[in-house]
Amino acid sequence: MKVLITGGAGFIGFRLAKKLIELGELTAPSGAVEKIDEITLFDIGEAADIEDTKGIKVTRIAGDISDRATVSRLIDRDDISIFHLASVVSGGGEKDFDLAMRVNLDGAINVFECARARTGKPRVVMTSSIAVFGGQHMPEVVGDTVKQGPQTTYGVTKSIGELLTNDYTRKGFFDGRCARLPTVIIRPGKPNAAASSFVSGVFREPLNGEDFKLPVTADTVMQVAGYRSIVDGLIHLHELDGAKIGIDRAIMLRGYTVSAQNMMDALHRVAGDRTLGSISVEPDPFIVDICKTWPLDASYERAEALGFPCDSGLDEVINNFIEDYVDV
Amino acid sequence: MKVLITGGAGFIGFRLAKKLIELGELTAPSGAVEKIDEITLFDIGEAADIEDTKGIKVTRIAGDISDRATVSRLIDRDDISIFHLASVVSGGGEKDFDLAMRVNLDGAINVFECARARTGKPRVVMTSSIAVFGGQHMPEVVGDTVKQGPQTTYGVTKSIGELLTNDYTRKGFFDGRCARLPTVIIRPGKPNAAASSFVSGVFREPLNGEDFKLPVTADTVMQVAGYRSIVDGLIHLHELDGAKIGIDRAIMLRGYTVSAQNMMDALHRVAGDRTLGSISVEPDPFIVDICKTWPLDASYERAEALGFPCDSGLDEVINNFIEDYVDV
Repeated sequence: MKVLITGGAGFIGFRLAKKLIELGELTAPSGAVEKIDEITLFDIGEAADIEDTKGIKVTRIAGDISDRATVSRLIDRDDISIFHLASVVSGGGEKDFDLAMRVNLDGAINVFECARARTGKPRVVMTSSIAVFGGQHMPEVVGDTVKQGPQTTYGVTKSIGELLTNDYTRKGFFDGRCARLPTVIIRPGKPNAAASSFVSGVFREPLNGEDFKLPVTADTVMQVAGYRSIVDGLIHLHELDGAKIGIDRAIMLRGYTVSAQNMMDALHRVAGDRTLGSISVEPDPFIVDICKTWPLDASYERAEALGFPCDSGLDEVINNFIEDYVDV
Repeated sequence: MKVLITGGAGFIGFRLAKKLIELGELTAPSGAVEKIDEITLFDIGEAADIEDTKGIKVTRIAGDISDRATVSRLIDRDDISIFHLASVVSGGGEKDFDLAMRVNLDGAINVFECARARTGKPRVVMTSSIAVFGGQHMPEVVGDTVKQGPQTTYGVTKSIGELLTNDYTRKGFFDGRCARLPTVIIRPGKPNAAASSFVSGVFREPLNGEDFKLPVTADTVMQVAGYRSIVDGLIHLHELDGAKIGIDRAIMLRGYTVSAQNMMDALHRVAGDRTLGSISVEPDPFIVDICKTWPLDASYERAEALGFPCDSGLDEVINNFIEDYVDV
């Protein structure tokens, strides 16, 4: 079978590809466990090379997801599973509404329509975000049963993606699942345009010996999860019996609530005698305003009941990051 | 100022036009009470003629709302208010998914983008529906704070319309408001493709001396409201201070819960010695299945607090219908 990963040059998409190569197989659309013979990483720019492909044909394609014909060429087999991760992120969407609508809404519909056009009723796993929550009716604890009131265009397009995934699935056009992600940490490399980019930077920059300006106050809370458990969660979601998910195909992947202070404390606890760059608290009104729209806490009951993985907390995540990206 | 009504040939759109002509004025986008000098009724087919225009230029235009250029020509003034009612209805959307997406989603985005292109920050009042509720997480009582889990493509597109209205308004592109409507009764004329069409037919056909087959069981409940209070509610929503609405621009317009039995009882109570066509209960699985996805009850707290009108119940609605459409 083939696996298409949109956003395949991104942090999660690329790690997912490596994990799929390691596994070598998935449950095929037919229901049988089947060898993966082809993985396509699609993104706006070409993904990095992947070394050991175990005989899996890995193709890296750059293109515009808002172009239907481009997407159609990617979804060229009936025995395909699609991980649709491509997205303009929160801060980026606030700065360019039209781009967010084109990439996140038109792009998702292109993926959905091309999946629908296949006869194999492929599985489509799309990433949503905890940014779907917000607004005047948001309770203190959000979750799978809570009304969505997104306060960023990013969150709005994700909320729409959940609705459409449910409807395309209800109509039998494909077998959709949505993973509603907390902030996934710790991202390597450069900061991105997500308002939550600092949640990785506060670990990454000091561990790389660089000073870091924290753009929020220390008591700012958010829901986070480590990238290893999120990648495992996406695969778990793909493999789950659809009947157990039910007609609401969007599930909060498991995370936990931490404050910026918790993050700084954990970093210093785990770092031991490493030399860290310093952290200064310098709130940036643009970021602070977006953070104010985020929920205080979240419940993950459905994901827990459905056996989704979860890491043990910040210390484990920092240690993983050091192993994967710092001491290499 | 100009008023554009999409879906202007429809039941509610046409009655709204007549009411606006009667009023002769609305609050303009500037905030000032201003004379209406132009009303455009847009629909897939041309609207009926309207007699007394009190000097208001009434234009009736037929066209395809999914064509951006067509919509752009309708929204040709900055001093404009838009009532966006055009929509493929529930049963119709279940039978033609692509048509529902094109008319309800692309059509709404066309209206929103053309409103955004004006400099007057026009008011856009869109009709949503109680069909946004449903699914495995639906509580017994739905309302403005309840998670939406639509089980028809119609409901999905309405839910998306609410999200987009909120976001275009948040971004300052226009001043949007959504009216989440219960089943509006009693529609004159022919049955339409809405799954709820029977809720009007059960009154209309017997009053016109025709026999009627009720396609649901007598204990089927739904939330309804009379057309007069709904038309008044749309105008009330247009006129409301936006700050009082807040960032969630979608409000359940006031209705009440009745059973099919309540409807038949009210009809016989109000009809007095009129000769009525007979009603036979003959459940249709297609309609019954859709009705099963509807909520059992609803709360209208926000609309009540914001002073929306509500009729006194079925007896009043039947009497209004007799006055407006039977004894004429």
